[in-house]
Amino acid sequence: MPPFQPGIVTLTTDFGTQDSYVGAMRGMILCANPAARLVDLSHDVPPRAVARAAAILVEACPCYPKGTVHLVVVDPGVGTERAALIATSGGHWFVGPDNGVLHPVLSQLGDVRCWRIDAKRVAEGSLSATFHGRDLFGPVAGALSAGLSPDDLGEPMDGLETTFSEPQPQRFGSAIRGEVSWVDHFGNLISNIGADLLPAERPRVEVEGREVDAFVRTYGEAPSGAKVVALIGSNGRLEVAAPNGNAARELGLGPGARIVVSA
Amino acid sequence: MPPFQPGIVTLTTDFGTQDSYVGAMRGMILCANPAARLVDLSHDVPPRAVARAAAILVEACPCYPKGTVHLVVVDPGVGTERAALIATSGGHWFVGPDNGVLHPVLSQLGDVRCWRIDAKRVAEGSLSATFHGRDLFGPVAGALSAGLSPDDLGEPMDGLETTFSEPQPQRFGSAIRGEVSWVDHFGNLISNIGADLLPAERPRVEVEGREVDAFVRTYGEAPSGAKVVALIGSNGRLEVAAPNGNAARELGLGPGARIVVSA
Amino acid sequence: MPPFQPGIVTLTTDFGTQDSYVGAMRGMILCANPAARLVDLSHDVPPRAVARAAAILVEACPCYPKGTVHLVVVDPGVGTERAALIATSGGHWFVGPDNGVLHPVLSQLGDVRCWRIDAKRVAEGSLSATFHGRDLFGPVAGALSAGLSPDDLGEPMDGLETTFSEPQPQRFGSAIRGEVSWVDHFGNLISNIGADLLPAERPRVEVEGREVDAFVRTYGEAPSGAKVVALIGSNGRLEVAAPNGNAARELGLGPGARIVVSA
Repeated sequence: MPPFQPGIVTLTTDFGTQDSYVGAMRGMILCANPAARLVDLSHDVPPRAVARAAAILVEACPCYPKGTVHLVVVDPGVGTERAALIATSGGHWFVGPDNGVLHPVLSQLGDVRCWRIDAKRVAEGSLSATFHGRDLFGPVAGALSAGLSPDDLGEPMDGLETTFSEPQPQRFGSAIRGEVSWVDHFGNLISNIGADLLPAERPRVEVEGREVDAFVRTYGEAPSGAKVVALIGSNGRLEVAAPNGNAARELGLGPGARIVVSA
Repeated sequence: MPPFQPGIVTLTTDFGTQDSYVGAMRGMILCANPAARLVDLSHDVPPRAVARAAAILVEACPCYPKGTVHLVVVDPGVGTERAALIATSGGHWFVGPDNGVLHPVLSQLGDVRCWRIDAKRVAEGSLSATFHGRDLFGPVAGALSAGLSPDDLGEPMDGLETTFSEPQPQRFGSAIRGEVSWVDHFGNLISNIGADLLPAERPRVEVEGREVDAFVRTYGEAPSGAKVVALIGSNGRLEVAAPNGNAARELGLGPGARIVVSA
Repeated sequence: MPPFQPGIVTLTTDFGTQDSYVGAMRGMILCANPAARLVDLSHDVPPRAVARAAAILVEACPCYPKGTVHLVVVDPGVGTERAALIATSGGHWFVGPDNGVLHPVLSQLGDVRCWRIDAKRVAEGSLSATFHGRDLFGPVAGALSAGLSPDDLGEPMDGLETTFSEPQPQRFGSAIRGEVSWVDHFGNLISNIGADLLPAERPRVEVEGREVDAFVRTYGEAPSGAKVVALIGSNGRLEVAAPNGNAARELGLGPGARIVVSA
């Protein structure tokens, strides 16, 4: 098992920041490990958006030192029979519900081991039906970050019970057809088309039938007058952006919009 | 007096996150105690919403290790004659204005001692009229988290000058009439009716005259087709939720909406 | 050069909090210095709003202990020829793009030394074209907070290449004409008129031709019935506020609105 980076625990939830929920969970992590160092990935995952949380973990977790504990609580099935997981993969630790949210990052990092958390050992009868972030996952992440063994917190599992994959782009002749996976804070339309699928020469890109004005290396290199450009974003995916603007708003498009790339 | 958990300071404000205000206050805490460990409860309390901040403290503070310093700055009376407080209760420390915001959590934790902060000892002539979070409360919270005695920062008080209580539910025969206290990030309508007031058998719940479709243990157990359900939330209060949706939006209801529970 | 306050790194960006971007940058800082202590100023700077980020730095950075590293990434020119900077000023450290964002705070603190970051030494071929916060600025801030010398990360520069100044108020006879620089979270209209420009006696203040109802010392001292008041805010600037309300919304005004002060 990987060692623990002293106390770093990242947090990813759909709790928002207006209620007591994130604060309560942070407190329970600190009760389990008063030396824990809490680092937010995001608490603004849309409610119940397992796919968005999964993508954030894929993009951000590999940026952390090995031994970091990554806690994710996007958990519409809280209190039902879905398992509560500990996993280790690629030198990182993960804690969250077995609802698919951890599947992409574990698949990417590989070499996965899993444990099913035993609520009786962790929550000692104080487990609510509706807030396992506070009552179960937080304390487990804190305990792991303090160096407790997952064998003390649960039982080994063979693997995840629930998987998740986003829609994959399709090849039609020399063209690639994909879609917008999400819209980022800047209004960039992030697609499911990886850079490795693009033609070596600057490709022709259409989004819902509208051809982009240029294919560029970075936002500031858009030619004067270009309203919409395509580029490879920092996550290695094709994206559509509006120089000094918000592409989603200007095009009136969002997740699911079709993107076609041809040579 | 309780010992100090090395340097943990929680922050609760209505400052929002777009301005320099939270950052400036964090800096002043770190000037007073460079080893302080800052943990946010929320900065998205609506402007001047003392009642909301009070409820967040009640729900989140008990989740922290004893010795934590809880700093709250929702302070519409900044610069006026309201006292600036230090309090200890239930092994926790509290710093904030004497405007009612600390009253519910101190009442809940009990065994309260209070001090009135002496601005002359803390702010040394640098006290602005409009930002005591930065100039007074932040430095005091930092000093406390470093182990300074409240006796060095102010004078003992007999108790809070300002109290606050939310509207209490009323009993009419076998029915309980309460109201929606707030709407959470998920659109759940959180009531002022505690679980201890509910009939032992599954109760009948009406919100503004509409009977909910089921009373459930957790969100994921709502029967298929149920649009609105009631349950006991993680804070021990009756709430009304929309499975996979936003109850406040679907019902068009918010704080103040009447809730009636009968056997 | 100033010493380093053990590991404090403040973060100011326009990344928002819904994506993986802030989390990824935080991870890269922690890879460079696992002991770094991350403190947010704001991630809600409007996209590409260099002027707003510059103002946040001016207001918040001086509140931090000397030796703090202040990292700012509002970087519409990412991947183009603009320099990546390290600077020291007033005992603080700064890391960010040379696009004007650091100019006001460095001018204020004075005694500036600058280095141009050498991407080859820091990013080792892993530099994306679109996310230098993660690939370049974050690692540099982390390295500085661990005590690395800026001479190991770049080459000395004579000074910033890009400067920035907000519009300055003008004097006409005994009147001062300025404008609203920004609207804060509370709806207060923050002007570009510093307290030092105001007449000693309580001045007469007009915003877009409407005279305010009173000039007050703090929000809670507005006379009963006053709808709009003026005061000196916590940043030392003249501002217009609505007691218990939102001045921007009530007046329908925002950045650029004219403010005239007379004796």
